[in-house]
Amino acid sequence: MTSVYLITDFGIEDYYVGAMKGVIRTLCPKVNLIDISHGVRKFNIKHGAFVLWQAHRWVERGSIILGVVDPGVGTARDPIIVKAGPFTFVGPDNGLFWPVVQEMGEYEVFKIDIRGTGLAERRTGTFDGRDVFAPVSAMLACGKSPDDLGFKKRSMEVLDLWKVEEGDGYLRGEVLNVDSFGNVVTNVKWDMIDTEEIQVIAPHSWARAVKSTHYGGKGLLMVRGSTNLLELSLARGNASEFLGVDVGDRIELRWR
Amino acid sequence: MTSVYLITDFGIEDYYVGAMKGVIRTLCPKVNLIDISHGVRKFNIKHGAFVLWQAHRWVERGSIILGVVDPGVGTARDPIIVKAGPFTFVGPDNGLFWPVVQEMGEYEVFKIDIRGTGLAERRTGTFDGRDVFAPVSAMLACGKSPDDLGFKKRSMEVLDLWKVEEGDGYLRGEVLNVDSFGNVVTNVKWDMIDTEEIQVIAPHSWARAVKSTHYGGKGLLMVRGSTNLLELSLARGNASEFLGVDVGDRIELRWR
Amino acid sequence: MTSVYLITDFGIEDYYVGAMKGVIRTLCPKVNLIDISHGVRKFNIKHGAFVLWQAHRWVERGSIILGVVDPGVGTARDPIIVKAGPFTFVGPDNGLFWPVVQEMGEYEVFKIDIRGTGLAERRTGTFDGRDVFAPVSAMLACGKSPDDLGFKKRSMEVLDLWKVEEGDGYLRGEVLNVDSFGNVVTNVKWDMIDTEEIQVIAPHSWARAVKSTHYGGKGLLMVRGSTNLLELSLARGNASEFLGVDVGDRIELRWR
Repeated sequence: MTSVYLITDFGIEDYYVGAMKGVIRTLCPKVNLIDISHGVRKFNIKHGAFVLWQAHRWVERGSIILGVVDPGVGTARDPIIVKAGPFTFVGPDNGLFWPVVQEMGEYEVFKIDIRGTGLAERRTGTFDGRDVFAPVSAMLACGKSPDDLGFKKRSMEVLDLWKVEEGDGYLRGEVLNVDSFGNVVTNVKWDMIDTEEIQVIAPHSWARAVKSTHYGGKGLLMVRGSTNLLELSLARGNASEFLGVDVGDRIELRWR
Repeated sequence: MTSVYLITDFGIEDYYVGAMKGVIRTLCPKVNLIDISHGVRKFNIKHGAFVLWQAHRWVERGSIILGVVDPGVGTARDPIIVKAGPFTFVGPDNGLFWPVVQEMGEYEVFKIDIRGTGLAERRTGTFDGRDVFAPVSAMLACGKSPDDLGFKKRSMEVLDLWKVEEGDGYLRGEVLNVDSFGNVVTNVKWDMIDTEEIQVIAPHSWARAVKSTHYGGKGLLMVRGSTNLLELSLARGNASEFLGVDVGDRIELRWR
Repeated sequence: MTSVYLITDFGIEDYYVGAMKGVIRTLCPKVNLIDISHGVRKFNIKHGAFVLWQAHRWVERGSIILGVVDPGVGTARDPIIVKAGPFTFVGPDNGLFWPVVQEMGEYEVFKIDIRGTGLAERRTGTFDGRDVFAPVSAMLACGKSPDDLGFKKRSMEVLDLWKVEEGDGYLRGEVLNVDSFGNVVTNVKWDMIDTEEIQVIAPHSWARAVKSTHYGGKGLLMVRGSTNLLELSLARGNASEFLGVDVGDRIELRWR
């Protein structure tokens, strides 16, 4: 049976995630539901796009990925289905899926059209996760094709996570995540760093960091993170607090 | 196979929810487990009752709803099973289930009697969620009837979420939830508001709010929430902090 | 089908837990996944060991318990499989599993050897939960034996939760958990307390506590917790804040 993987910025305190799961199971009772995260930073599409990108290599092939980080709910952004690689994505067309789709090469995008599905009558306009994306995911999981639920559109919103400025002896990138351990995950690919020691220049601080093969060294460490990106880490401490940086901050790495 | 939907104030840091799930799966291995929320405000029966009310329309028909917000555990409140509409509720008799049951019309209440089930010997008195409500839910999911696990009682605790005072040019209601986005969910039904602009009078502040069809406008907004209640929302901001209100606060709406 | 129970200190905001679940389901699609907790205090092996000990009596017999609290990831600590009682444990050899294994009597330990499994090539060194422990758990759930995935070792790390100093009229123990209600769970077995009233001496405060059969009394209460340990509780209040104690603090109980 198909699995549906969920990623949202809804948190888990409210009834929102439970309602989406109830909708899915009502329409497709045998589906498997797996949470990627509901802790995406509120309204932060880029953060959601990155968490999803981090996870995607470990999502079962053939799965549906239901992603809802949707500051534009109720406005003109399109609800979409995207077929790309082994996955089917369902959610708002705002860039959330782009970093994964980009890696898949070929893709097809469908604008969801819920007329004739019985969903339009019950749509409240403030919770498309429950009213559109969850039921569409369920219908896809239980055998409908994207053609049944929408019509093809030519393109989708793009969102580039990988802008890094390379200069003579420096790189300028961005903090894409601060994980719950305080590790600072950057958009700098590990292979771009060929020095054992760097100067880290954050908006309000700077520090020296040395390469480490694990999180167990001393001082600020450069670690090859679990998705091959440069992470800044403080052994059993919180590198994010130490550097005073958060998601979205620019960060400069200097070795000369 | 039957699903069991869980709602508690246990949080997810401790072993409590895991233990309840282990108990259920031990007694009824094929059951499906769906979390509505474990983030109900501690000991706040009214908050739990409201979160459950919000969710119930999206719970699979035929499901068991296991609800544990139970400040009176170890005291005299009854453990109950309630059959109402398409649902079976299991939990303490303290009003938690009333707002949903009220909407179902007919209902039957059973006081749980665990003598003869093997459960009485292992009951600790401080964790009925694990020792009583989880195993009873599992037994119901795997075919027992309420008559096997208790005896009928005449009535159950009621809890009224919907008290709103209507006057000439004003309404006085209550904040039933502040969601993780900071949206202030009131007990005022959307249809009760037939003006485009109101004055919101909170215990420690007041503000003007205008109607919006989505969360994307400017300033404080009146939004028809996802369960047809009036929500106060601040576009990409936190309305709860802006107004200084929290769950349980009274709120007055004035349009003259 | 076998269930895998997960306990980690990963939190649920990041992609970590989702990736582990995706790996498991990819390798063994029919497995059931149950979360015990992902809220173990960061890097706190003892806290994780205790939360797991609290839960284990309610875990389905025959299950695999995947535990990752692993400050030493990337260093020399062994990855292990432990067979003990009705359970199979998978995780780092750092004491995390010992308190449960200790209660099972006989046990067998295997050092995981991933050569020949295809896993070694993809191991990043910073996320063994995803790269080693999750796939090994999946392979065990789908029929592999520990002999297929490692070789026997003689012993495993021990970790003693139960050190209590008993003197004339006093006990000195430790705070093993503060739950999300603020209840202070000690390592003092309930049966060790045969007085109705004690003096609680914490590092920075002291208070009188009286026995109660439930959480509903007045003032600081001694309660028989849900795993038969002494809990200090404040009726509808937060005993941890009241006493100023946290996980790992020493606590003295005096009755003379």
